[in-house]
Amino acid sequence: MIARRGLIVGASVLPFVRSAFAQDAYKAPASEHALNLVNLLELEQQASSVLTPGAFGYIAGGAGDEWTLHENRRAFDDTQIIPRRLAGFGLPDLSTTVLGAKMALPVIISPMAGQGLVHVSAEAGTAKGAGLAGAVFSAPTMSNVTLEDIARATQGPKWFQLYYAKDPGLNRAWIKRIEAAGYGAIIFTVDLEFPGNREADRRNNFSFPTSLPFANLDGPARDGGFGGLRDVVKGNLSWDDLSFLRKESKLPIIVKGILSPADAKLCVERGASAVQVSNHGGRQLDGVQAAIRALPAIVDAVGSQVPIIMDGGIRRGIDVFKALALGASAVAIGRPALYGLALGGAAGVKSVLDKLKAELMLAMKLSGCASIAGITRAHVT
Amino acid sequence: MIARRGLIVGASVLPFVRSAFAQDAYKAPASEHALNLVNLLELEQQASSVLTPGAFGYIAGGAGDEWTLHENRRAFDDTQIIPRRLAGFGLPDLSTTVLGAKMALPVIISPMAGQGLVHVSAEAGTAKGAGLAGAVFSAPTMSNVTLEDIARATQGPKWFQLYYAKDPGLNRAWIKRIEAAGYGAIIFTVDLEFPGNREADRRNNFSFPTSLPFANLDGPARDGGFGGLRDVVKGNLSWDDLSFLRKESKLPIIVKGILSPADAKLCVERGASAVQVSNHGGRQLDGVQAAIRALPAIVDAVGSQVPIIMDGGIRRGIDVFKALALGASAVAIGRPALYGLALGGAAGVKSVLDKLKAELMLAMKLSGCASIAGITRAHVT
Amino acid sequence: MIARRGLIVGASVLPFVRSAFAQDAYKAPASEHALNLVNLLELEQQASSVLTPGAFGYIAGGAGDEWTLHENRRAFDDTQIIPRRLAGFGLPDLSTTVLGAKMALPVIISPMAGQGLVHVSAEAGTAKGAGLAGAVFSAPTMSNVTLEDIARATQGPKWFQLYYAKDPGLNRAWIKRIEAAGYGAIIFTVDLEFPGNREADRRNNFSFPTSLPFANLDGPARDGGFGGLRDVVKGNLSWDDLSFLRKESKLPIIVKGILSPADAKLCVERGASAVQVSNHGGRQLDGVQAAIRALPAIVDAVGSQVPIIMDGGIRRGIDVFKALALGASAVAIGRPALYGLALGGAAGVKSVLDKLKAELMLAMKLSGCASIAGITRAHVT
Amino acid sequence: MIARRGLIVGASVLPFVRSAFAQDAYKAPASEHALNLVNLLELEQQASSVLTPGAFGYIAGGAGDEWTLHENRRAFDDTQIIPRRLAGFGLPDLSTTVLGAKMALPVIISPMAGQGLVHVSAEAGTAKGAGLAGAVFSAPTMSNVTLEDIARATQGPKWFQLYYAKDPGLNRAWIKRIEAAGYGAIIFTVDLEFPGNREADRRNNFSFPTSLPFANLDGPARDGGFGGLRDVVKGNLSWDDLSFLRKESKLPIIVKGILSPADAKLCVERGASAVQVSNHGGRQLDGVQAAIRALPAIVDAVGSQVPIIMDGGIRRGIDVFKALALGASAVAIGRPALYGLALGGAAGVKSVLDKLKAELMLAMKLSGCASIAGITRAHVT
Repeated sequence: MIARRGLIVGASVLPFVRSAFAQDAYKAPASEHALNLVNLLELEQQASSVLTPGAFGYIAGGAGDEWTLHENRRAFDDTQIIPRRLAGFGLPDLSTTVLGAKMALPVIISPMAGQGLVHVSAEAGTAKGAGLAGAVFSAPTMSNVTLEDIARATQGPKWFQLYYAKDPGLNRAWIKRIEAAGYGAIIFTVDLEFPGNREADRRNNFSFPTSLPFANLDGPARDGGFGGLRDVVKGNLSWDDLSFLRKESKLPIIVKGILSPADAKLCVERGASAVQVSNHGGRQLDGVQAAIRALPAIVDAVGSQVPIIMDGGIRRGIDVFKALALGASAVAIGRPALYGLALGGAAGVKSVLDKLKAELMLAMKLSGCASIAGITRAHVT
Repeated sequence: MIARRGLIVGASVLPFVRSAFAQDAYKAPASEHALNLVNLLELEQQASSVLTPGAFGYIAGGAGDEWTLHENRRAFDDTQIIPRRLAGFGLPDLSTTVLGAKMALPVIISPMAGQGLVHVSAEAGTAKGAGLAGAVFSAPTMSNVTLEDIARATQGPKWFQLYYAKDPGLNRAWIKRIEAAGYGAIIFTVDLEFPGNREADRRNNFSFPTSLPFANLDGPARDGGFGGLRDVVKGNLSWDDLSFLRKESKLPIIVKGILSPADAKLCVERGASAVQVSNHGGRQLDGVQAAIRALPAIVDAVGSQVPIIMDGGIRRGIDVFKALALGASAVAIGRPALYGLALGGAAGVKSVLDKLKAELMLAMKLSGCASIAGITRAHVT
Repeated sequence: MIARRGLIVGASVLPFVRSAFAQDAYKAPASEHALNLVNLLELEQQASSVLTPGAFGYIAGGAGDEWTLHENRRAFDDTQIIPRRLAGFGLPDLSTTVLGAKMALPVIISPMAGQGLVHVSAEAGTAKGAGLAGAVFSAPTMSNVTLEDIARATQGPKWFQLYYAKDPGLNRAWIKRIEAAGYGAIIFTVDLEFPGNREADRRNNFSFPTSLPFANLDGPARDGGFGGLRDVVKGNLSWDDLSFLRKESKLPIIVKGILSPADAKLCVERGASAVQVSNHGGRQLDGVQAAIRALPAIVDAVGSQVPIIMDGGIRRGIDVFKALALGASAVAIGRPALYGLALGGAAGVKSVLDKLKAELMLAMKLSGCASIAGITRAHVT
Repeated sequence: MIARRGLIVGASVLPFVRSAFAQDAYKAPASEHALNLVNLLELEQQASSVLTPGAFGYIAGGAGDEWTLHENRRAFDDTQIIPRRLAGFGLPDLSTTVLGAKMALPVIISPMAGQGLVHVSAEAGTAKGAGLAGAVFSAPTMSNVTLEDIARATQGPKWFQLYYAKDPGLNRAWIKRIEAAGYGAIIFTVDLEFPGNREADRRNNFSFPTSLPFANLDGPARDGGFGGLRDVVKGNLSWDDLSFLRKESKLPIIVKGILSPADAKLCVERGASAVQVSNHGGRQLDGVQAAIRALPAIVDAVGSQVPIIMDGGIRRGIDVFKALALGASAVAIGRPALYGLALGGAAGVKSVLDKLKAELMLAMKLSGCASIAGITRAHVT
């Protein structure tokens, strides 16, 4: 990296150069401890104090006016719980199985790129924390730890998010690695063909630290920050690409980023094993529907055929409850997991999931739902 | 209590010890005087100045984000009054009878635990104030005064809220005491099988003072704060428990905490004499419907068979009016009564009820309703 | 004024007597000049600086939480104008005739008691200003100037608001005086049988100055402030009272204070010549519908039989336009006229009406309505 | 102008006089450079710092309470995007053709009077910037540069907004000049027969600088500020005037300022080539519908017969996308272009359009729309 910056290093200037180097190498937090949380909402403010403004802005921010980012949460208020009473059970059972993955709670960690930005353990830490809590971990293609190391880090179920490459050979190679490493499903993200309009990043002049390589990649893309993505990833994805994945792997395929019922139907026609209703956390196109609002129509369209996963704004146990009541089989969370990682490493991630679990338990107990399957559309209005 | 803290008391240190003891023993307000109220809404701020932050937070707070707590009040705005004119009467008659209880106004004091927290007279003070104003007092199982003393404190109608015990024998014993003390109905609270997520209590590190014993209980539960509840109260309530109560007592049974029409129908099928639409003042599960919004569907379901009581957010005479117009036979209030108790003892409770009565009188007079029965769904939109 | 204050006093007690007496005699503003207004909304703040806090609070305030007071204005936003183009006329004609009263603009000054509170000219000033602008003036029973003096003060149309007395003889006597003085209609106010819950007055400890007599009354009620009303005015009004008025006078009768279509129909059945949709400016029962929201159903019920007048929240020419588009024949304003009176006497009242006229002219011109009759329900959505 | 002010100019006082003259002559900004924009919303604050308060208020302000001004933007939130995925294309094609005008993006600069107020290059600068970006420029009748000079300033498509004159001969003369200068369409503005109620201008005591002549006019109107308009422009426009234009020119005619479907149908019946849904940027009659809300019904009424253009509140690429999805063929922007002109001249205007283009590209890419025609009502909800 010194060379890249073209510094002519000599003895006399070495101290200065070292200092420059130290400044250049991004330093992520390294805490490892459980968090004493009151709720997940307070994590954001806490995380902002351990991350650089640029890194925090990159994670917390959304696209454009952040209307969709905020609507993702606000829209939960439009659905209200109608609890049932005297259900005659003690504590509810939160476990469930989605696409063969046995989970202690119906929660998945969304695939998120470059988690080395928030903690030295990167994706390995998040994966470990997820496994300890019994949640599914979704490994991103753009991880700072190899997918094999991530797989080894968690005892729990794990899925892999594939950034579909221009090169079919590379896709095939990745699929082999994914299957060999024991991932249980492939997540095909379809809403990231072009980077969203993240104004916080522009204002912060943020770029991903080049000192955090993308460990699954080779060549320039590995060390080039997100800029390198464009050379590798296919920018004109089509339904045939889904068919390609379907043909090349026996793993279940989850298509992530669906907001229209018509697309959901096409996913199923092309062999998708599940659909993930998502607007990418409000980070891609501002002005699209809140995920929780888009959910019911997609459940109506294909919910009887494949499991529906939903992400976008989940911060409370009652949010999980509402999503499940509206037909989701499980939900995914993103930012709160990263904040947990930033604040406490794997233990922090576990704390976040445990808190969500406790809140979902309470929501189920106090609304008369003894099991995940017992949460139905009749429980909301 | 001195012993519990392990203090070795000797002559020389006695003053200090006494001081420590005084600090340990919770000191509730002891004022006894009528309140000069403009309205019930201003009580909360006033009460906050005579209670400890922990006690105030425990009473004023709600579950989670307090969405339901606030929605309980906001939702009243969705119902608007359509007054009638030239009705030809002088002053309206606010009296009514519910389950045999003759009331000067259609208002009940909700059962609330541990009222010794806000006033030295505890439940006896609230009961006395309710009786003076002509309102029903609902005695809680978890009172700091015995249910017999409460019964003696009020000249007015009184009901008893039963925390259903694990031990059938204890339930039978309580029923006998309730009947013997002259209570006119049993309130079966069904939404408190598990403590709600009260974040204010966590932030305040609040626990119920152990110096305030629960006078109806025996053994460790008596002095253990709310923690002792878990050993006594049944946490997996079922419809059979309602049948048990129905069988064991001749008193009318009010099932409190119903928010779904389906449950309301089951209540009636199992012999309930009344249904109380309630979300426990937004204190149990955040995200449930406002009580006033849940009311109409429940009235439609069972309102022709049993009286419907409603609580949640009642602060104004027009709130009572709206609830009655939507089909409630009476409403219950909680926090405002406690604030009145904190600020003025029994006289304060009476002031609160008198103010509500005056406002309801005005609402009836100015909308052309000469009697409680005259308030109909045609008076709102 | 000095004479009225009886200031010829003996030397020794002069300081004390003067002070006591001066405090008693209320001093209203006395300015007489046109106002340079940008709009009517800014009047309130300006008026607050020339009135005592008590007087201002009495005028500006509403009942209870002032929800209806504010909703009266907010609800206008729910109706939006759909303008038409290329209508081929120059300037619109704002004149209209309601119940035989020829008006230069479809605006009436609402009856308001005790206008001596805001200006030394009292109702005579408001009446004069209304006449100069071509608006109808509604004289209140509780005026500080006799109804005969009011009648002489205006060149324009004038109506009289009758506070229906307990004593039929007094009603007959008033009707004779009203007819003799040349009033063109009787306004029968039916929403004031009991004083509303004006909390501002309680907080300000406001009572109407006893130094401002009610000039139409005799005996103790004349000098007793509003308290004297109770002895004179009937508090249990009935439909028969409307029939009495219908029988005793040939003048058109406007029933003011109607919010329900059912009452509107009864008014017409009992011989009312017009219905005034009104919630008394949000001053009587808080929680009732905004007047503009109540209007359409009443127009649907009786609008084809009698003219409908509407008041409540009119501050802009577009508000008048919307009310007329929804079926009103004219609107009434209250507070803005009083503010104009306070700030500039009769000239101030004229300024207020002229501004409203200019804004209505603009609304009609820019929406393609050449005349009052040309404003239809098709012009709003 | 010196003469008009009656200055007796002599050698000795010349410097002073010159100075006085320089102060009198309005000085508009003169910057010429591209802008580094994050989005169009931040332009307003930036422009406020380079314009006089009066000029800024005149441009930024709306009529009355500015409800429609703000609703124009807020109402976009009521329409949400439903993106499609896996559409199989690379980058979308934003080009389109409306009324024969080939545009690089479906955006038109609205006609706006007196652009010399914000930049020394006036309309020539805006036209040049529009042409560089590939947008249509709409020249106003009331320009500070002659329509011929404007035409020469842009390489792109250009339309002319005609203020219809009282004198048919003047209209014919203008039409000849318009056609001769190569304008491709006539915009007939029908919502400006009378100046709107711009309160900011009243508060700022703003009048258009007389030192900025209206270059297309002759005689007193040329130098008289907006006041001169009244003598020239017809104030009682009718449908026959549209027929006159239709008869006198072969150019397509766009009727601008339509908000009702009925008027839209009349436009088509009278030979209009396009309809522009507009409320004049909230500057004429406050309280009318937001343009984006008025759009769908007008599309339903005549969208199959003529192109529909829409303006009002467009600030984001997603706003353009929503308008097109609801049936518009193109949108027009006003204030943002003026702000770009004020801040950077022609280059600033180009920057504004380029930013909007980039955002629209992103919206199309991320919602699966490869072309303008591919944006359909199925893409919004």
